[in-house]
Amino acid sequence: MLQQHQQAFTVPTCGREFHEITEQVGAVADKVGIRTGVATVHLHHTSASLVIQENADPGVRRDLERFMARVCPDGDPMFEHDYEGADDMPAHVRTALTAVNLSIPITNGRLALGTWQGIYLWEHRYAGHSRKVTVHVVGE
Amino acid sequence: MLQQHQQAFTVPTCGREFHEITEQVGAVADKVGIRTGVATVHLHHTSASLVIQENADPGVRRDLERFMARVCPDGDPMFEHDYEGADDMPAHVRTALTAVNLSIPITNGRLALGTWQGIYLWEHRYAGHSRKVTVHVVGE
Amino acid sequence: MLQQHQQAFTVPTCGREFHEITEQVGAVADKVGIRTGVATVHLHHTSASLVIQENADPGVRRDLERFMARVCPDGDPMFEHDYEGADDMPAHVRTALTAVNLSIPITNGRLALGTWQGIYLWEHRYAGHSRKVTVHVVGE
Repeated sequence: MLQQHQQAFTVPTCGREFHEITEQVGAVADKVGIRTGVATVHLHHTSASLVIQENADPGVRRDLERFMARVCPDGDPMFEHDYEGADDMPAHVRTALTAVNLSIPITNGRLALGTWQGIYLWEHRYAGHSRKVTVHVVGE
Repeated sequence: MLQQHQQAFTVPTCGREFHEITEQVGAVADKVGIRTGVATVHLHHTSASLVIQENADPGVRRDLERFMARVCPDGDPMFEHDYEGADDMPAHVRTALTAVNLSIPITNGRLALGTWQGIYLWEHRYAGHSRKVTVHVVGE
Repeated sequence: MLQQHQQAFTVPTCGREFHEITEQVGAVADKVGIRTGVATVHLHHTSASLVIQENADPGVRRDLERFMARVCPDGDPMFEHDYEGADDMPAHVRTALTAVNLSIPITNGRLALGTWQGIYLWEHRYAGHSRKVTVHVVGE
């Protein structure tokens, strides 16, 4: 019979960076022994986001950062929402261009990720933050 | 025992704008009394999209609009698909860059959104449209 | 009572292109006779992605390609991750800007897609690849 489980955790970020959370997400499915199902991952913020990206060469993450810095430069005078600084509105734009929730099947008791896929929390602010993630799993 | 519920509703838009639908999505979970679960929200269109963004300062939404207008300007002569006008293809691009479906956990009977997160239907066309949204909830 | 079903399939791509997978995704729900539920579609790669886009005029897909080629040009000297060629890092950026998983309600035994919505696997590499997709459905 199908069952579900839900768990939240907090990720302390150290400013603008990619923080891998693949193991923490997988651990929620492990805890209840779900073999086949689906995991939903939700980030409770609008200035950080979730991406599934290559977990091998860290140059990929540096290049993703370079891309965002060029397409949506910090301190852009076009933006009116700059209360919290030059990185405030670009953080919201980066979040809109990526995602705050993901849905990943669970197969044979593990997240059905490709060999090179890792789940990353992408902090878009200069300062470190405490970021809340909720993981919901359903399956059997 | 897990149960599910599904409901569709229509959002009348007034041209290019952000239309908040957080309460309408939450109401579907309320109706069946699901305390813990997950809500899937799907928009049935390719020229409007769904984003979870800051619900406090409306300047954030104006700046998101400014960003899209710059990165994908209306009437761009590069585009061949312009049957319905200067906003036709840019609407498809904005949709591809954001999302048409979201998955949000339900915790303690409420959508597990952060304090500053609102769910928005982002209309990308100049004209108002009637936009269909389907919400599916599963949980108990 | 709710049931689930999961199935993986492989999509052979012919280099940079849109490959429609709407029918293959719908077939997974058909197989177990789910009338109401939700389908999760996950692509196991970081240099190809999933988008729901217009299935009528192929010009939309050509214009989406034009947009990406301009915002993230191949061979950009800014990128350090170019081991596999000029299209290597742009493929990762295009993937980050779109999605690798989708969640689509099932209504009356069919994917609850809009009239003009098709599900596409977007290959971002020049060369053809064998791309793995997992579909998970839950419902009754």
